[in-house]
Amino acid sequence: MNPGKVTLLSAGPGDLDLLTLRAAKALASADVVLLDDLVNPEIVTLAPGARVVRVGKRGGCRSTPQAFIERLLCRYALRGLNVVRVKGGDALLFGRAGEELTALRRAGVAVEIINGISSGFAAAAGLGISLTHRAHCPGVTFITAHRQDGGEPDWAALAATGTTLAVYMGMHRIDGLCASLLAHLRADTPAAVVQWAGSPNERRLLTRLDRLAADAEAAGMASPSVILIGGAIGEADASVATVVPAFLPDDAEAGPRTLSQAA
Amino acid sequence: MNPGKVTLLSAGPGDLDLLTLRAAKALASADVVLLDDLVNPEIVTLAPGARVVRVGKRGGCRSTPQAFIERLLCRYALRGLNVVRVKGGDALLFGRAGEELTALRRAGVAVEIINGISSGFAAAAGLGISLTHRAHCPGVTFITAHRQDGGEPDWAALAATGTTLAVYMGMHRIDGLCASLLAHLRADTPAAVVQWAGSPNERRLLTRLDRLAADAEAAGMASPSVILIGGAIGEADASVATVVPAFLPDDAEAGPRTLSQAA
Repeated sequence: MNPGKVTLLSAGPGDLDLLTLRAAKALASADVVLLDDLVNPEIVTLAPGARVVRVGKRGGCRSTPQAFIERLLCRYALRGLNVVRVKGGDALLFGRAGEELTALRRAGVAVEIINGISSGFAAAAGLGISLTHRAHCPGVTFITAHRQDGGEPDWAALAATGTTLAVYMGMHRIDGLCASLLAHLRADTPAAVVQWAGSPNERRLLTRLDRLAADAEAAGMASPSVILIGGAIGEADASVATVVPAFLPDDAEAGPRTLSQAA
Repeated sequence: MNPGKVTLLSAGPGDLDLLTLRAAKALASADVVLLDDLVNPEIVTLAPGARVVRVGKRGGCRSTPQAFIERLLCRYALRGLNVVRVKGGDALLFGRAGEELTALRRAGVAVEIINGISSGFAAAAGLGISLTHRAHCPGVTFITAHRQDGGEPDWAALAATGTTLAVYMGMHRIDGLCASLLAHLRADTPAAVVQWAGSPNERRLLTRLDRLAADAEAAGMASPSVILIGGAIGEADASVATVVPAFLPDDAEAGPRTLSQAA
């Protein structure tokens, strides 16, 4: 029997043509595909010969336990199958890949990792900006507001780095994180929220730190979204916004609205 | 005459099959391709109909001035050509994309941005680890050691974030950055250097912070390399290293050597 293997495959942010050529090849030869919730479901059309198992877990509800997913991966691979484990974005950023890699290594299963486009990069592309414009910052930090221990990231230290901040899984704590950052960053620090980055449903809000939480709420921006904060975000042209923030001088009372024509 | 446009295309870390499907399509219909130094030169095989202009600039020498590149992009696009500007990794991370986007916007040239795989992600894939294993860190910071103003990043703040650090363009300052970080991080903090990440020439060194500079030098690790520092790096299995560090107990006097068989 052939030894099976697991390919940890990054599906990118949404649009299927943001998959890598290598990912498309791996899907074409898959026997089994294990699919996360946030992945574009049409990805299965690239794996016509595969049995598809949906193992999504989103925000704690309707979840497949992580340990069960790990057992399933090992079981299929040890049967000699070509298993493709699909995760949204890049699997190596906030994807629980660490736990799955450890489990597979312990079980003696060969693993290949295929990178992809994380939603923070797609969000910057949608805004038409570099994440690290050198006139503004020395880098970018990808941070989750949702720590394993339930605690908060060290917002003071993050602000002090001077890097662009790309906050993942932060929408349910946006009030608190904005308040924390306002203690360390200027109120007019440019900020943006990009929902469904890199997909046809992408929505973009451009604002500033002190109005970020209120504007995002008023615009109905929800998960999955990336929050971007820092000087580099100020390079975005206002025309890229598809959701108009509340604070525009001419429109102060109207609240955010979705543009009828996306830029 | 058709209005021309510029596609800012991310070529990924090296292997051509790490390009996205969208990037491959854009190259196939390019009239002109402007190519950076560090991009895999075989990428031109994907753009058979294009005139290829090499505009590399590496570490300051043999450089095409940035302003000249920007003028060239505008000129070709305003002639109605389909211009593809190719940058290594993801164009929106340390790629001077910011300046080029500003110049194109000012000239009224339409721009499309296509994301790609940055070398820090490819380095993590080579090491078989997540960049953000949640048992170790709340995120990852991509930082350049080479600031526009010649100054250093705030290493104390970066260390205090608790994020994995992915240092780009750091090999020429590795002594100094290790010394700075050792004032704030434990000496045994896991660390790695990955040279030519995501290409067939990839070389991987696994070590710890206090031995990082010496091991990297002894192993002849040079640019282009990504330096990774943080607890998450400690999840890598020793077998992924293709360069053996000097500090291994059985081999303390031998110095690093390249393994004859890459893992």
